[in-house]
Amino acid sequence: MKKLLLINGPNLNMLGTREPEIYGLTTLPEIVKMVRARAEQMGLAVEPFQSNHEGGLIDFIQAEYQKANGIIINPGALTHYGYSLRDCLAGTGLPVVEVHLSNIQKREEWRKISVLTDICIGLISGMGVEGYLMALEHFKDE
Amino acid sequence: MKKLLLINGPNLNMLGTREPEIYGLTTLPEIVKMVRARAEQMGLAVEPFQSNHEGGLIDFIQAEYQKANGIIINPGALTHYGYSLRDCLAGTGLPVVEVHLSNIQKREEWRKISVLTDICIGLISGMGVEGYLMALEHFKDE
Amino acid sequence: MKKLLLINGPNLNMLGTREPEIYGLTTLPEIVKMVRARAEQMGLAVEPFQSNHEGGLIDFIQAEYQKANGIIINPGALTHYGYSLRDCLAGTGLPVVEVHLSNIQKREEWRKISVLTDICIGLISGMGVEGYLMALEHFKDE
Amino acid sequence: MKKLLLINGPNLNMLGTREPEIYGLTTLPEIVKMVRARAEQMGLAVEPFQSNHEGGLIDFIQAEYQKANGIIINPGALTHYGYSLRDCLAGTGLPVVEVHLSNIQKREEWRKISVLTDICIGLISGMGVEGYLMALEHFKDE
Amino acid sequence: MKKLLLINGPNLNMLGTREPEIYGLTTLPEIVKMVRARAEQMGLAVEPFQSNHEGGLIDFIQAEYQKANGIIINPGALTHYGYSLRDCLAGTGLPVVEVHLSNIQKREEWRKISVLTDICIGLISGMGVEGYLMALEHFKDE
Amino acid sequence: MKKLLLINGPNLNMLGTREPEIYGLTTLPEIVKMVRARAEQMGLAVEPFQSNHEGGLIDFIQAEYQKANGIIINPGALTHYGYSLRDCLAGTGLPVVEVHLSNIQKREEWRKISVLTDICIGLISGMGVEGYLMALEHFKDE
Amino acid sequence: MKKLLLINGPNLNMLGTREPEIYGLTTLPEIVKMVRARAEQMGLAVEPFQSNHEGGLIDFIQAEYQKANGIIINPGALTHYGYSLRDCLAGTGLPVVEVHLSNIQKREEWRKISVLTDICIGLISGMGVEGYLMALEHFKDE
Amino acid sequence: MKKLLLINGPNLNMLGTREPEIYGLTTLPEIVKMVRARAEQMGLAVEPFQSNHEGGLIDFIQAEYQKANGIIINPGALTHYGYSLRDCLAGTGLPVVEVHLSNIQKREEWRKISVLTDICIGLISGMGVEGYLMALEHFKDE
Amino acid sequence: MKKLLLINGPNLNMLGTREPEIYGLTTLPEIVKMVRARAEQMGLAVEPFQSNHEGGLIDFIQAEYQKANGIIINPGALTHYGYSLRDCLAGTGLPVVEVHLSNIQKREEWRKISVLTDICIGLISGMGVEGYLMALEHFKDE
Amino acid sequence: MKKLLLINGPNLNMLGTREPEIYGLTTLPEIVKMVRARAEQMGLAVEPFQSNHEGGLIDFIQAEYQKANGIIINPGALTHYGYSLRDCLAGTGLPVVEVHLSNIQKREEWRKISVLTDICIGLISGMGVEGYLMALEHFKDE
Amino acid sequence: MKKLLLINGPNLNMLGTREPEIYGLTTLPEIVKMVRARAEQMGLAVEPFQSNHEGGLIDFIQAEYQKANGIIINPGALTHYGYSLRDCLAGTGLPVVEVHLSNIQKREEWRKISVLTDICIGLISGMGVEGYLMALEHFKDE
Amino acid sequence: MKKLLLINGPNLNMLGTREPEIYGLTTLPEIVKMVRARAEQMGLAVEPFQSNHEGGLIDFIQAEYQKANGIIINPGALTHYGYSLRDCLAGTGLPVVEVHLSNIQKREEWRKISVLTDICIGLISGMGVEGYLMALEHFKDE
Repeated sequence: MKKLLLINGPNLNMLGTREPEIYGLTTLPEIVKMVRARAEQMGLAVEPFQSNHEGGLIDFIQAEYQKANGIIINPGALTHYGYSLRDCLAGTGLPVVEVHLSNIQKREEWRKISVLTDICIGLISGMGVEGYLMALEHFKDE
Repeated sequence: MKKLLLINGPNLNMLGTREPEIYGLTTLPEIVKMVRARAEQMGLAVEPFQSNHEGGLIDFIQAEYQKANGIIINPGALTHYGYSLRDCLAGTGLPVVEVHLSNIQKREEWRKISVLTDICIGLISGMGVEGYLMALEHFKDE
Repeated sequence: MKKLLLINGPNLNMLGTREPEIYGLTTLPEIVKMVRARAEQMGLAVEPFQSNHEGGLIDFIQAEYQKANGIIINPGALTHYGYSLRDCLAGTGLPVVEVHLSNIQKREEWRKISVLTDICIGLISGMGVEGYLMALEHFKDE
Repeated sequence: MKKLLLINGPNLNMLGTREPEIYGLTTLPEIVKMVRARAEQMGLAVEPFQSNHEGGLIDFIQAEYQKANGIIINPGALTHYGYSLRDCLAGTGLPVVEVHLSNIQKREEWRKISVLTDICIGLISGMGVEGYLMALEHFKDE
Repeated sequence: MKKLLLINGPNLNMLGTREPEIYGLTTLPEIVKMVRARAEQMGLAVEPFQSNHEGGLIDFIQAEYQKANGIIINPGALTHYGYSLRDCLAGTGLPVVEVHLSNIQKREEWRKISVLTDICIGLISGMGVEGYLMALEHFKDE
Repeated sequence: MKKLLLINGPNLNMLGTREPEIYGLTTLPEIVKMVRARAEQMGLAVEPFQSNHEGGLIDFIQAEYQKANGIIINPGALTHYGYSLRDCLAGTGLPVVEVHLSNIQKREEWRKISVLTDICIGLISGMGVEGYLMALEHFKDE
Repeated sequence: MKKLLLINGPNLNMLGTREPEIYGLTTLPEIVKMVRARAEQMGLAVEPFQSNHEGGLIDFIQAEYQKANGIIINPGALTHYGYSLRDCLAGTGLPVVEVHLSNIQKREEWRKISVLTDICIGLISGMGVEGYLMALEHFKDE
Repeated sequence: MKKLLLINGPNLNMLGTREPEIYGLTTLPEIVKMVRARAEQMGLAVEPFQSNHEGGLIDFIQAEYQKANGIIINPGALTHYGYSLRDCLAGTGLPVVEVHLSNIQKREEWRKISVLTDICIGLISGMGVEGYLMALEHFKDE
Repeated sequence: MKKLLLINGPNLNMLGTREPEIYGLTTLPEIVKMVRARAEQMGLAVEPFQSNHEGGLIDFIQAEYQKANGIIINPGALTHYGYSLRDCLAGTGLPVVEVHLSNIQKREEWRKISVLTDICIGLISGMGVEGYLMALEHFKDE
Repeated sequence: MKKLLLINGPNLNMLGTREPEIYGLTTLPEIVKMVRARAEQMGLAVEPFQSNHEGGLIDFIQAEYQKANGIIINPGALTHYGYSLRDCLAGTGLPVVEVHLSNIQKREEWRKISVLTDICIGLISGMGVEGYLMALEHFKDE
Repeated sequence: MKKLLLINGPNLNMLGTREPEIYGLTTLPEIVKMVRARAEQMGLAVEPFQSNHEGGLIDFIQAEYQKANGIIINPGALTHYGYSLRDCLAGTGLPVVEVHLSNIQKREEWRKISVLTDICIGLISGMGVEGYLMALEHFKDE
Repeated sequence: MKKLLLINGPNLNMLGTREPEIYGLTTLPEIVKMVRARAEQMGLAVEPFQSNHEGGLIDFIQAEYQKANGIIINPGALTHYGYSLRDCLAGTGLPVVEVHLSNIQKREEWRKISVLTDICIGLISGMGVEGYLMALEHFKDE
């Protein structure tokens, strides 16, 4: 059974309470539950992790990537300056799908540039919580 | 029954033959067939259109948008300079999902900027043909 | 009797329905009628044309410019990247007045630059439908 | 009866003598006379003012704006750096039409950017002395 | 009684020893003491926190913000790239005052841009230790 | 007794009436009164001056700086291009505190850069009328 | 016998009449005749095509490239923004030689950048009508 | 007898006292005296003027230029943003020599660009008070 | 005996396994062993530390720098945005030598800029594992 | 009989050995021989010169240009910074054709800009050794 | 007796013949003669040198600077990229005056930047041959 | 026995006298002697060369590279614009180590960019004379 790491970056533990007009009302535990339910239907296992520490995300990925077949990541604001996270993801050799809840092209200038996308398989942006589920499709199909 | 316009821009009629190492081997008629099959399962109708003319895409959208509930578009190279297409899409008031087969962040500098994304709901990039199917999910969920 | 070409670019056929909070409620046929009425008072003939195709605008101008004494153009989004249209206008040797309904300096960054203005006599921007009528004044006075 | 302030910035008192190949041969008093004549036909009063001092323009506008219904301004070179004038105009809450005699897009790079336009109703550029008269049309129509 | 979080970012625990010609001789515990004394006079409570970890600052703010009425923050070098901290502060919905001991406009180019200021109430820069006390004034007055 | 020059630049004489949603409802005479009252408590004298003319501000500062111990300045829009004012302030050799009522980092791009800050002691921005009073604290403490 | 597509972009049908001081007095039919005559001497066939529509050029190239051995193209103003044309040319896999009549480095800033050159074999610029004939040499030699 | 206008911009009335390590110890009246003495030897008359107001400089030049044969100007900080002064100087049609006491290329970035130089005959920079005398040589030689 | 801190940043604990075509096959413990062996020959002690957390590196350096005579650091991706680390290193007052295994000038654009180099003694880049040993030479020689 | 200078810049004496995958296998003496043979057929004389010294190229051109009717130059890397060579070529008043063996638009960013092209008749780039022969055509036709 | 090096860079040996509408009709030997005559009146000796080789200028300056008291240099096009010449001049420790015959601010963009000026005493530009004589004044006065 | 070319660029023959506060007091002959001594211990031969002429450095490298196994180069100011030298070095196919005595990242902006580094094995910067000896280590280890 294929296993995916489901990584969420800084402040995503606040989903559902922080700026719901942008990020929606669903909490992170609810998202994890939804993703797991859909993954199970596809025969995929999901290992979730969230941290506000870039170093914490890297520690986790380094520890787990050898047991995994792919990564779904919503990097939060690290999207824009997390070069160490980028190197870590690239170093795993795993396929990575980057997910953003909001359409980052509709927001501040600095939010439009992701320093991670070019080492990912691809990007799903602006699709809300549905974006995580769409990302699962990629791993089903491989 | 909800109806979607499935718009493909310049050169996408050459899919399957042009630079398959980047764009894959599936042809556009095969993609349309796949999208239609999946859409039917979701109770969605799909109206496909391709043109190498920016003006042709605009003519089509102006003629059809009042009968439609949403747009899925792969704008081809117009992604980067199709400001008239952008104005046309924005003018419809419909939800638009932008799809790119390849991950445009892995390619030439000029391909990284889309002039359309900020008037779309969101973006799915680098997911290959699967990207069109993921986009359908958005309209199912609304 | 002097004759003017009244050229409208992509999406201007949608005036009155598309984004009326920006472009107003008057339709293009109504504008043409108003311009013609005022022109007649000044002893000017007006030949109107609209296309969503940059190439279509060029084909028309090439066919008609030798019978005309001037051009009033609202280039729509081609304002910002219509270099072929620019070359076509410059090639006619006719005086050209550029008109924008909205004040393009109040809008998105990319809308602030016109690639046409420096080959025109001048620019009237933000004056709404009245801008077309002001442009007529220029040709009366010559 | 509606009253308009007709503001002219630095060096415009030299019109008719300074660089006539760019700015024409009409003097500022002659322009004021022409504008007044046309305004009267429209039932508009015009209060003219010229100064070479940005502060002088601001002093005048602060003193007069409460008695006025609109402003026509040719800011001269302050177009490009008159941020205090800009704040003053915005502070009046009046509709402002910006006029340039020459087409500033045909000239030096620094002349192409106006720091005032985005707080104005709109811009008339390159229409020569006729531009002031066109601006009057805006106030007639309101 | 209103409660303020007093947040200090990386290296500010070294105040009084690190580069005193720039940052002065007062230590962070002394500053906390001074701020607390002044705050008490104003009827304000102060909860201090320092960390060299961006994630640590976020963890603290997420844990405490619901019990607080405002934030005074000296972000240290995170001023210039702490986008996750920014999102965290914005997410609290609390009024935030940004304080810098030195005048960051007198220093290296990269120190002149703060990625936090536009989500803060305002900025106090270059006022030395006094800046923290000035920030208190803001909360007294509300 | 220490004496401070309290300088206000262009349009600040309109405080309380101009764009109160940005600048508040307090008038400049009221601010001067508040600053004087607080200053007296601290044993400081205050000499206020406002002008819409950059040259007028310079004339005043040149005439008065030898009798003064410091300067509090809200330069208005001269913040962004008042290089002559900058040279004048630097030439006095006095400590200068720059004050902005609104948080200039939340506003237009051009308002974010101050050409004065690097010759000032520091900056207080976004604190409203309270900012002037905070600035007084600096001089009390010296 | 090798066959070449001889493609001319927008406004090149006006050669000989439009701005002859830049583009010379020879018409496009005359150029086609000259190129054909020289090509015949080299044992090369030439299929000419001109359109003012970027989409039209793409339609033609897609229809003809499989019967051709190479392309000579003067893209007109599409040189500077014809990204769809670029993708089309790259997709043919044929050797392409780009020709400009005038030396584009002597002209406006925006004319200096070609978005096509890096997918071409090479560039011949400023050689007038002779440039087309020089381009033939390349195909003779292969 | 040829007559020269000797114009000095903002803060140059403070020469000898303001930042003498940059600008030297000679006062402006002393400079005027030196320039006049040397000019007399060359048979040149000199009309000096200084103002802290850009508008004041323009008023003076407009009033005097018809009686003059040339201008020597040290524009002070207006060097970098005095576009109205520039237009005024250009409008006189007189030869203008720009003088800076200090070598502006050794100083802050913004001081390196002069908006006046390209409408002047030339520039003498960094030569101290001697620069004014060198400028006289130009008018002797004409 | 002089003591050096040997600091390695994020992901360098993966050396030998991550992207060996760029970083080589030697592991970090092997490198530490080699550096220690060479250091001993020179009479130098070495204290190694690695962390994926910028804050962790800062905590370590703050705790140890007073017992050390110099620092050798390979900052990993923090090279490009570790401004807090930079401030920490500068605050120690110790000589710092920056080491990169690969030649960062041969790689992505963002990797070419180090925000640390200008507070270091110098830089050794592209020399592979040998670079750490070269850095030791610097401390021997002092 | 018309005479041409055939100038080759730095490192072109290494042709045939240096990076043949870019520059081909033909040596410079072989190229000179080919160019001479073709030139003779056209009734043109050719004077070849190569130097690794920019000054050497200038010395040669200054000595020979009065006896010549045109220049064919492959400037090597001086293409990108040889401003003195540029001034020398412009000073001859002769028609100059610039030749590059490789298509410089396919290579490093800095190779894309030629500081010479705008003082040349035109440019032939990417045509290999054939480019020199194409350049001859220009002089035959004049 | 003080001795000056009079250095002229590439192509200045062509003065009087090359582009006289820019550089005038006087030849370099005539200029040297004029400078020497004036220098003698001031009790100054002049050692002239011209080369088209940057290295040649450096060789000369290194050989002569210890016998000299100052340098007057017209660097020709090396003004814009002669960083080695710059280092050489700075290394002499002598006062250097930079002279340009034409006003480089009136010419091409790249001619506006001098890489030498900030290590010179100052700059004299646009004064024609007279500029060399003005430069002598500087050395007389020291 | 392996042989290395030890290349020094413009002005490095002045080491020990020119700006010793930056470059130290050791002369170039002393450095050559030190490098040779250390090289001999490693069984390496060293061929030194210095020139102030870029062309001279190229001539030497072209003549000698076939007898050599590697190059150590301190390019002096050619670091920043020596594109011909770069092409020459790249053309040798030899491993090249770039050495700078000072830390170029601590100096002027233009000194921070090397146009050579990306064709070198690596870079040693800021290590003083020791840098040359460190470079030898690289060749010992190969």
